[in-house]
Order: sequence, then structure tokens, then C-alpha cells
Amino acid sequence: MDRKDSVSIRVFSLNCWGVRYLSKHCTQRYAMIGDMLLQEEHDVILLQEVWSEKDYLFLRKKLASSHVHSHYFKSGVFGSGLAIFSKHRIQDTLLYRYSLNGYPYMAHHGDWFGGKAVGLAVVNIGALTANFYLTHLHAEYCRERDAYLPHRVVQAWELQQFIRHTSAGADVVVLGGDLNMHPQDLGNRLLTSYTELRDAYGETDNFDGYEDGLTLILENPFISPKVIAPFQKGIRIDYILFKGSCNANIQCVSMRTTKGSVPGQPFPYSDHEALTAEFTLAPREASGDFRSSSRDCAGGDVARLVDILTEARTEVKVGVHCAERMRYTAARTAAMGLALLLLELAIAAVPWLTMGAEQTFPLTSFYLLVALCLSILLCTSLLYIFYTMELKSLQGTEDQMRLAMGSLQEKLKGFPVAKTPEGPKPGDVLRAEE
Amino acid sequence: MDRKDSVSIRVFSLNCWGVRYLSKHCTQRYAMIGDMLLQEEHDVILLQEVWSEKDYLFLRKKLASSHVHSHYFKSGVFGSGLAIFSKHRIQDTLLYRYSLNGYPYMAHHGDWFGGKAVGLAVVNIGALTANFYLTHLHAEYCRERDAYLPHRVVQAWELQQFIRHTSAGADVVVLGGDLNMHPQDLGNRLLTSYTELRDAYGETDNFDGYEDGLTLILENPFISPKVIAPFQKGIRIDYILFKGSCNANIQCVSMRTTKGSVPGQPFPYSDHEALTAEFTLAPREASGDFRSSSRDCAGGDVARLVDILTEARTEVKVGVHCAERMRYTAARTAAMGLALLLLELAIAAVPWLTMGAEQTFPLTSFYLLVALCLSILLCTSLLYIFYTMELKSLQGTEDQMRLAMGSLQEKLKGFPVAKTPEGPKPGDVLRAEE
Repeated sequence: MDRKDSVSIRVFSLNCWGVRYLSKHCTQRYAMIGDMLLQEEHDVILLQEVWSEKDYLFLRKKLASSHVHSHYFKSGVFGSGLAIFSKHRIQDTLLYRYSLNGYPYMAHHGDWFGGKAVGLAVVNIGALTANFYLTHLHAEYCRERDAYLPHRVVQAWELQQFIRHTSAGADVVVLGGDLNMHPQDLGNRLLTSYTELRDAYGETDNFDGYEDGLTLILENPFISPKVIAPFQKGIRIDYILFKGSCNANIQCVSMRTTKGSVPGQPFPYSDHEALTAEFTLAPREASGDFRSSSRDCAGGDVARLVDILTEARTEVKVGVHCAERMRYTAARTAAMGLALLLLELAIAAVPWLTMGAEQTFPLTSFYLLVALCLSILLCTSLLYIFYTMELKSLQGTEDQMRLAMGSLQEKLKGFPVAKTPEGPKPGDVLRAEE
Repeated sequence: MDRKDSVSIRVFSLNCWGVRYLSKHCTQRYAMIGDMLLQEEHDVILLQEVWSEKDYLFLRKKLASSHVHSHYFKSGVFGSGLAIFSKHRIQDTLLYRYSLNGYPYMAHHGDWFGGKAVGLAVVNIGALTANFYLTHLHAEYCRERDAYLPHRVVQAWELQQFIRHTSAGADVVVLGGDLNMHPQDLGNRLLTSYTELRDAYGETDNFDGYEDGLTLILENPFISPKVIAPFQKGIRIDYILFKGSCNANIQCVSMRTTKGSVPGQPFPYSDHEALTAEFTLAPREASGDFRSSSRDCAGGDVARLVDILTEARTEVKVGVHCAERMRYTAARTAAMGLALLLLELAIAAVPWLTMGAEQTFPLTSFYLLVALCLSILLCTSLLYIFYTMELKSLQGTEDQMRLAMGSLQEKLKGFPVAKTPEGPKPGDVLRAEE
């Protein structure tokens, strides 16, 4: 294959904010999104927060002529919210549900019910096999005291694991979605260092969009200024990431985002800005010039990976500690509920045992207390089971991270130059690995 | 690389039946298993139903000198029960939790609490990369009326998906575990047709073990004759499956199973028989002679795949129908509970509204009924959420199967020869795909 085989593709990503009856102007926005997608004719469309299957079916009908192939990833109670539309045939799909995703009793946050996951669609583009991943990680509700940080770090860890393990057969890899992480957040560094995925925003000089590539901005009328207040103009949490392989080269030609409004429309498509990236894909002549394979930990800066992994393990350990404490609290509350129930039964039993003595325990209070104790017992039992499962997932991730650390340290052992204060240069590490 | 690079490895698989305090002679059996494993020095040991982490840690300590590398896959409430021990370095691991795994209220069956999953360990053997998968699917409690069949078919589907998508970078693939499926069961056909994994039992002439390779047998004193009664001498549900790649060849040299007892010991290792397979691994000279890659649906008999997939879709649809019915029943019961509660409150409110009239509703009955109604409401709500999640997973699998069917039909279209009653020969299909 030679250079003339190169193809150009346009990839679109948008968090649609599609909570029926709760998100503002939901139906009108879907109509706007559908019209725009039909007109723009992107090659691959990656949508998040399409919570209702009806909205997916509406878009599928709308795009029936332009995007023949589509898939809606079902998971959790409401679904994963992930939908893909493609002009090229989707050969195969796979869904990986994150093991942790918030708490069911935090119903007002709702993440748990969404069954957050990463979807994979294997798409054939010309002679090339492209793996498209789309995901939506757990939201961050309070940056200063982020109770969900361990869960999001575990999700980022599972996301990078899933991409690494499933992309060995792919010529190019593209990941789009709402990662709910700022560019320098731990989970993001974990993801990009391990997978070697590159950020489309940073990889092109041809950028047209809101400054600094922000995707949650003050100018968007659906955004509460309170949310953005601590971050000046906004935050960047939506991404299109990509990488090539030893078989194919991929380059980001241009990147575009919306800027809080849509010309000629009364309101924007969503509370998030929409991302469009244009790529050029070209088969490689020979595999020799490709820097590394994903199998050997992305071959990147091993020492930097060790640092990031150490940080991630600390965060997961904090999560383990919290889950253990919460499970202990659940068990203690259950024990107290049981003790209260037994005490109450004992008090009620006294007149019965002393035969004929008048029952002093008012019946109303008795039954209310029994109901209260039983409710406490039921709720704390369910919570105990839930926290045990959370603990298992966190500990499992910690185990996997420890194993990964062992592999990295093995690599560092083979590294000939003493570690400088700035850490070894990537080139040195690569030489050591060869 | 040439032929002298070939290596020989021995793989062991056993369902340990390790339910502490419930499984008979659990501690003694683990001691026996540990001694045997230490003596036999298999290259890779794949264990299932190691439900307690303490037992895993006991084995890890015991095998610290012979098997330096190990991993315990954590999941669910009790854990996945999956453990791997290896003489070769485990480079990386990944756990995929099946989306369906029985029902939490079927506590006496217990599968739901186990968090069934498939574990992947990437192991370096010499210059080769071997992907070891170990799994344990949902048990079959009644073959005639198997309520869990749709769940097991979904698990088999997810297992084949996971293996196909994650094994593209592997030189050889080995899967060991208790599949809880007979050799010709739908799930097994789905798994082996899609992945092209070969059964070690059928691939060697050098077999030493119980007749027909059975792994749940009447001679095993831990097995209730009732379980085996419908199947004459026993059933075969534990397997070691394998395949090579375009980079490496793998052959099964010999296969061995225990026969219901262990010489010199008072009882067997488990209620399942233990499997040992010996393989020869050799790098391939060139990739041209390998029949197909897993990326193109294992390149096998496409028409046969269509038949199996049709059968699997039917089974999943039955599951969808059942889940819908159960969810409807939960909703109806919740509505009845609510109606009863409102009726009761109305009756109790009458004397209150007519001021001064005597309360005719006995207090005891009133509170008992309120508690009953609230319990019904709570339980049915939880069940409604659970069945919705089950439905989402089943529908998601059905969608993926429909997509896979589309891909297969595309392939069949390119097939030049009219379909004969016996279906096209694999060779013909391969030619059509080229």
C-alpha cells in the first residue's frame, strides 16, 4: 500500500445532556442535533448521555440515509447513554462496564443508575481497521472534596486496561467522550501515559473553538455560573484522543468546538460543547519506524509511569480505606438496630412473663419501633453487601496496579543510566527496553 | 526463530469447591491441593471456586518457591473465585465481569454473590506472549427447566467477545475453567466457533483419565448420585481450550484427569476432577501458513456460525421475554401494595374525619398492614430496578448478536457457491473472504 491510500475522516463527539423531562429543551435540542449531524456528515459520531432509547431511535431514523451503521450500548438501569453512528460498517462491538460507578443511594447524582461503561466499535475504513471507543466517566460534583475520585481513578485505570488489551489488532484507535477529568488530572495522565493516546486538541495547529479548548463554558446558557466559578472561564473535560499503530499512521488535521451558542438557533446543542476532529489515516510502508507497541506498556517514559501509578495507587488506597470505614459503620449500625430490637422485645416480654401484669409498652410505639429496627437492619444489610462489592473492586484494582508496578520495576532494572533528578529521558528508556 | 525455540508447558485446571464451612473437608483438601501442586510443578495453574482469599493466600505461601507469580481476581461479594499461579512472569491482568449472573434472591444458589467473571493474565513464556483466560460460568441446577440458560448464553457470548477482542496481540491463547456446559451445549458451540479455540481433550491421542473425559463423575464421593443420575456415568463441564496464532503454533501433547479419587489420600481434591494438559509451543517461520486471524470472525464456517447465532439469539429473546414478564409482575405487585396502603389509610382516616367517632381499625392490625405494604413496596421496587438492569443486558446482547449476524450475512453475500444442504465447506468460505 502506498501514500495514495490515505483517507480523511471526521469524528464528532458530544455529551447530549439527554435527561428526558429534566434537561432543558431536550426534544428541540435533539432535533437540532439531528439536523446538524445530517448536514455535516461526519464519518463517525460518538454521543454520550443519550439516556433514552427513544432519542437514539429518533436520531437513527433521522440519520438513516447518511449513517447506515449505528449501535446503542445498553447497560445499568437507564442505559450507558453511549451511542455511535457511522458511515462505515461497524464490524463488531463490545461493552465494558466499569466495576465502580458511585453509589445507588446518591440518587440525585444518578451516576450509579446510568451504568457507566466504555463501548468499543470496530469499524472498517477502507483497508484499515479502526477501533472507536466512547465513554463517559463519573461526574465530579465538588473538586475540593471529591468523594468520587477513587471511583474515577478506577474507571480511568479500567479504561486504559480495556483499550490496551483490545486494540492490539487495530490499525488506528480513536477515543471520544466526556472523561469528567481536567487535562492534568491523575486519571487523564494514567490513561494517556499507559495507552499513548494523543489529545487531538494539542496535536493540531488548526484549532477553531473556545479558548484553551474548554468544553464546559460560562457562555453556555445551560451552565450554572456556580459550576464554572472556581475555574475562571470554564473547564476542558471532553476529549477526542487518538493513536496509530505499526500498520497505520494517523494525524489530526484540524479540531473544532462550538462556542456556547449555535448561529441561527435559540440555544446550544447541549450544556457541553461539541467537538469535531479531522484526521488523515495512512497505511505505513513498514512497521520498523513505529516507536513501540502497546503491549509493552506503551514503551513510554517508564519512570514517569511509575510516578503516576504510585499516585493512582495512593488514591485507590484512600478509596479502600473509605469503603472499609463505611462498611464498618454499616455493620455497627446493623448491630445497634438488632440490639434495639432485642431490647424492645425483652421489655414487651416482661408483662407476658409475669402473667397478668398490665402491658406498659404502648402498642403504637411498639410497632413503630419494630418497623424502625427492621428497616435499619434491611438497609444496613444492603449497604454492607454494596460496600463489600466496592471494596472488592478497589482491592482488585490495587492488586492489578501492584502487579503493573512490578512489571515497570523489572523494566527499570534493565535501565542502564542512573536516574537523574529530572528522571530518565524517554529515548534512554526506549534504548534500555530494546 | 527456528524449531529449537519450541517449549513445553503444562497447564492445570481445577474447580476447588472452596466454600468455607460448607464444602466438605475444605481445609484438608486445600492442603492436599497445595502439596500436589508443589510437587507437580505445572507451568500455569488455573483455579476456580477459591472463594476465600485466605485459601488463596495459603496456596500462595505454599507455592512461593515453585510459582513466584500469582493473581487473585476480586469481584462481586465473595470474589470471582478465580486464581492463577504461574512459574512465568504475569505481565498484565484484566477482569471482565459478566453482565448477567443469576439473581440475588436465589441466595441458596449463590452464583450472583460470586460475581462471575473471566480473568485474563498475559504471561511471557520464552519469547512468546501467552494469554491465559480462566473463568467459571453460572451453574446449571436443572437441565430440563434451566431458568439460567439465557444468562449462561449471554456469559458464553461475552466470553467469546472478550477473548476475541483481547487476544489479537497474543501468540498463543489458553482458556481453562468450569464452563458449566456440556461439550455440545449452545454456549460451548458459540464459544468455540467464534474463537476457534480447540478442546485439549479432543486434540490429543494421549489421554489418561476418566472415560469420555468426564469431570463430574459418579465415583467422586462428594458428588450426589442424584446430580449425575440423568447422565449415566457423569458429565464433562471443565475444559482446557487453546489456539495458536500467525506467530506461534501450539499442540496438545497429552491430557490427564483425576478419576474420582487420589491414590494414598482419603478423598479427592474436589467434587470436580482436575485437568492437566501438556502443550508444545513453537514460533512459526512465517505467518502465511496460518489459516485465519480472529479479527475476521475466526474465518471458520460462516454458515454454521449463522445457525449457532440464530439459536443463541432465540435463547436470549426467551430471556428478554422472561425478564419483561418478571418486571411486569414486580410493577403490578408494587401497584397492589400501594393500593392496599392507600385503602388502609383511607379506612383509618374515616373516624378522624368524622371527628369523635371511635377508631374501629385495631391498632395492631393497622401497623402490621402498613409494615407489610411498605415491605412489599420496597422489595418490588428493588426487583423492578434489578429486572430493568437484566433486561438492558439481555437486549444489549441481542443488539450485538444482530450486528454480528449482519456482518456474517455480508460475508455470505460474497460467497460465490450456492449454499448446499450441508452448508458451504470452510475452504470455500475462506476463499470468498480473501
